[in-house]
Amino acid sequence: MTFTARTPRVAAARKLQRRRDRDQSGRFLAEGPQAVREALAAGVVLELFATAEAIERHADLAAHAEVVSEISEDGLAALAETVQPQGLVAVCEQIDVPLKEALAKKPRLVAVVAEIRDPGNAGTILRTADAAGAGAVIFAGDAVDPYNGKCVRASAGSLFHVDVVRSPLDVVTPLRDAGLQVLATSGYGADDLDSLADDGVLAAPTAWLFGSEAHGLPAALLDAADRPVRVPIYGGAESLNLAAAAAVCLYASARAQR
Amino acid sequence: MTFTARTPRVAAARKLQRRRDRDQSGRFLAEGPQAVREALAAGVVLELFATAEAIERHADLAAHAEVVSEISEDGLAALAETVQPQGLVAVCEQIDVPLKEALAKKPRLVAVVAEIRDPGNAGTILRTADAAGAGAVIFAGDAVDPYNGKCVRASAGSLFHVDVVRSPLDVVTPLRDAGLQVLATSGYGADDLDSLADDGVLAAPTAWLFGSEAHGLPAALLDAADRPVRVPIYGGAESLNLAAAAAVCLYASARAQR
Repeated sequence: MTFTARTPRVAAARKLQRRRDRDQSGRFLAEGPQAVREALAAGVVLELFATAEAIERHADLAAHAEVVSEISEDGLAALAETVQPQGLVAVCEQIDVPLKEALAKKPRLVAVVAEIRDPGNAGTILRTADAAGAGAVIFAGDAVDPYNGKCVRASAGSLFHVDVVRSPLDVVTPLRDAGLQVLATSGYGADDLDSLADDGVLAAPTAWLFGSEAHGLPAALLDAADRPVRVPIYGGAESLNLAAAAAVCLYASARAQR
Repeated sequence: MTFTARTPRVAAARKLQRRRDRDQSGRFLAEGPQAVREALAAGVVLELFATAEAIERHADLAAHAEVVSEISEDGLAALAETVQPQGLVAVCEQIDVPLKEALAKKPRLVAVVAEIRDPGNAGTILRTADAAGAGAVIFAGDAVDPYNGKCVRASAGSLFHVDVVRSPLDVVTPLRDAGLQVLATSGYGADDLDSLADDGVLAAPTAWLFGSEAHGLPAALLDAADRPVRVPIYGGAESLNLAAAAAVCLYASARAQR
């Protein structure tokens, strides 16, 4: 039996494109072979919807899913948010962990996205943090939902590799209690990144705080952090794009911590 | 007199949203106060279209434009590509320079975007290269048009700060002749970025080659470069997003060259 867009289970899954329904159900959607492969490896796939063609082409993935439901092309179009979903959409259990649990593992590198609303930026930072070896990424305050489809896609699988945490905005004290120095990125930071690297400061376990591109970090977080840090600007640009600044900071820490 | 979407000069300017018309006319559009300010400073604004409200709010900008044409809200909506253009769109002369001219200035840091099709990525790399102190950004081969509206916006003014060059794909020889070592980014590079930094290699004048996120660098460029270089991946991510990788490489050079 092939499910269509009107099949109740497909219609119910489709609702997971909305944050309210994700929050209520504790589930989210992962689409495309890469995300589905990572979700299966993480053991969080509840149901894999796939077209007949995708079941054949990705037989290895279909074999690892407990429930595989064949869907029509219109069913796929209803579930998928991209133009080329490549035939696969998985309903997954949300995987975020409490702050306490993530910090109990004593990560040496943590990224905090504070009130970042843009899902593409948040997902890119998640991917970069994972690449730089971060143990946890904390979505603090009124940040984008990490399970937003665009965030999941921009993370390119990294959502399943690091501890994802959702927390209130006041994260500085628990971070510091976990032995992390807390560095706040700011265009007006007193310390510049290169000086901190020269002085050996970046070798210590570090949590980086990143604010939104439009508003920067909330003042309360900036004040609570150990140091405000600016990425040096050598040319005529006023600032860096948020995800680029995060990449420079996280990799400076990764290099210093080796 | 207030121009509308149907006024011939507005209709003609609107055509600059299309690459063909930009290529034929040698002009492009810059929208919003930041881009318009930079374009005015660069002396390339031919005509500034502004709503009555924007002329009042941005009197300093209007005062510096040789030709200011008041447009209606519908005229603005026709010219602008964003939802919130803030009342200003300027018709500008294209500002790219020949490769020879850019290299004659002996830049110590150059970014090459080779066959990159995504305008947001290209504009972000332009912004990051400017911030890292690069002297030139080269759009090589079948790359996106640097004057594409999305690229102009993502560059956040940096289009007007660095030498922008459009060139054929085979740029390695002229770069090397200009005294630059040519480093090609590749997920499979033999050298990793941290080792090159440790060994002092990055202190030399450098041109970085970046390929598209989907296909990487064309083989001919990868082969012609002095070294293929990979950004080290410390965690579970397969790779970095293109603009993030570019930020890490360009800032590693900037730091080493200080």
